[in-house]
Amino acid sequence: MSENIKPVTIKDVAKELGIHHVTVSRALRNTGSLKAETRELIKKTANELGYKPNRLARNFRNKKSDVLAVVVPDLRPYFFSKYISDFIEVAQKEGYSVMIFQSSEKADLEKEIIDSLIGYRVMGVVASVAKDTVHENHFDVLKQEQIPYVFFDRAPEQTKASQILVNNFQGAYDAVTAMLKSGKKRIAYISTNYEHKIFQDRLLGYKQALKDNGLPYLEELVVKGGFFMKDGFDVTKTLMALKEKPDGILAVRDEIGIGAIKYLKENGIRIPEDVAVIGFDNDPMGVACEPELTTVDQSVPSMVEGTFDLLLRQIKNNSLNFEKKLIEPKIIFRGSV
Amino acid sequence: MSENIKPVTIKDVAKELGIHHVTVSRALRNTGSLKAETRELIKKTANELGYKPNRLARNFRNKKSDVLAVVVPDLRPYFFSKYISDFIEVAQKEGYSVMIFQSSEKADLEKEIIDSLIGYRVMGVVASVAKDTVHENHFDVLKQEQIPYVFFDRAPEQTKASQILVNNFQGAYDAVTAMLKSGKKRIAYISTNYEHKIFQDRLLGYKQALKDNGLPYLEELVVKGGFFMKDGFDVTKTLMALKEKPDGILAVRDEIGIGAIKYLKENGIRIPEDVAVIGFDNDPMGVACEPELTTVDQSVPSMVEGTFDLLLRQIKNNSLNFEKKLIEPKIIFRGSV
Repeated sequence: MSENIKPVTIKDVAKELGIHHVTVSRALRNTGSLKAETRELIKKTANELGYKPNRLARNFRNKKSDVLAVVVPDLRPYFFSKYISDFIEVAQKEGYSVMIFQSSEKADLEKEIIDSLIGYRVMGVVASVAKDTVHENHFDVLKQEQIPYVFFDRAPEQTKASQILVNNFQGAYDAVTAMLKSGKKRIAYISTNYEHKIFQDRLLGYKQALKDNGLPYLEELVVKGGFFMKDGFDVTKTLMALKEKPDGILAVRDEIGIGAIKYLKENGIRIPEDVAVIGFDNDPMGVACEPELTTVDQSVPSMVEGTFDLLLRQIKNNSLNFEKKLIEPKIIFRGSV
Repeated sequence: MSENIKPVTIKDVAKELGIHHVTVSRALRNTGSLKAETRELIKKTANELGYKPNRLARNFRNKKSDVLAVVVPDLRPYFFSKYISDFIEVAQKEGYSVMIFQSSEKADLEKEIIDSLIGYRVMGVVASVAKDTVHENHFDVLKQEQIPYVFFDRAPEQTKASQILVNNFQGAYDAVTAMLKSGKKRIAYISTNYEHKIFQDRLLGYKQALKDNGLPYLEELVVKGGFFMKDGFDVTKTLMALKEKPDGILAVRDEIGIGAIKYLKENGIRIPEDVAVIGFDNDPMGVACEPELTTVDQSVPSMVEGTFDLLLRQIKNNSLNFEKKLIEPKIIFRGSV
């Protein structure tokens, strides 16, 4: 065919009908669930416009690949880099290769990434969403292309996709209970400024543990730090400046907890005698400090295994399921409690 | 065209001539440097076999994408996760999206990844090679497809590709010199069991610093640990069991150095009075321990900037260059020296 004739594309058909091009592609490929009338209308329009399915392109699109995609908000936190490394190990044993993307905690970038995955012919997607991702509309394109996806650790608040989450409520609840059992009476809570549900759940667990032990919830003991050691250091300074000081601190990240430990030690406050500290994540960093940090472990290996299992079953059955798994966290006791 | 006629592909032409299909594709697209006779022979054979360039496929192949690929051996070490996060920030400002791959320190997996990049139409590749990657043959396919690539931190020993490396010799040299200046006389060296050149260079820097200060190189003071804190803890135990104990330790990774600090403290050995410790990487973990770990900083930001600069110039000039940049490391002094 001549280099000058521009062939009619699926996008042209979609434009003509004012519908999404993936819907057109589904109709022309007879895939997905689509009203018969819609499918016919699309095919009719495609013919009228002179659309010719490009065989190579179609084989390309239909070709089974062995690629899985992992999308995370940030590669730096130990939890995510450890998760990905473990996931790749498991995937390779099953003969899959893995491509990784970082949304940098931005929902719009996350959307771009998800859109791009269609072109890469991935067999499945595993994602932990950005802090400002509330709905999962930008994942619909995967559904439309019948690409299975599973959320891990962080899922959109309403989703009909499979997901494997940590019981964050229980993790915080158990951590507070442990400090109260050790004789503490004023437990402070240091969060990040991220609004994501996993942090809300941890706060709820904190509140519930106080309630169940007949203790009041005190605004002054709940502070928001940033994400890192320095932030934990600074907010702990604020907490220890209170007229009635806390005798226990629950930090939503180990790095924040280590920052707390550093402030306490620099100011001659004994850990755990004067103030106990517990973090979240079981970051190896928690073993570097002294005393070593007691932490809520989210069992990355079982989360990886669970994600892979949820994903693989959908790939093998060639169907999209909705399953929800909850990982029960475990407290790892070290010197700080 | 009918769904039944199987069109002649580039691979068919390649098979006919017994040459690599990318060579055929280059000849037919008049790209790359290729002997005129070869190019003509390939075109002649293609015509004889009835090869018709598929326009869509060709546009697809020639289409400028905005995707860059980063390939690292392991995502868990802070150096790599920090590098990638920073690289993505810079790339986004320039309008590029980034896909990430982990070779898990395996050269064969690295090869698979590089091969797959062709299909993803990446504009450029940034790679730090696996510990057992010595030659760069498996990167040639990028050259053939005229996809620019830059090595950072770890490059194959012989390469004609652009690269940005850290002056590891100097980093180790300066670290040892700093401990000698502080009055130490028996500096031990803890390495990993990785044979990669970056670790060999650090050992050479260690040896040279001893020599320039009139000190002997003693086998018993040079030990190989693993990669993590526990390993540093264990080998330090071995070192401190020597009849003549070291009064300084250079570890090739901060995690190993922190393991050393933990052993020393648990055994009442004062840091830095009795034994000074210096690590490599400027891992935030080094600030978690006490005393805080003095470290050789490899300046991730300037390495990211340098890599991106080397890559972007090749992309914009649409040419592959060979440039070598060396980053001069800087010692960050903390409590352990």
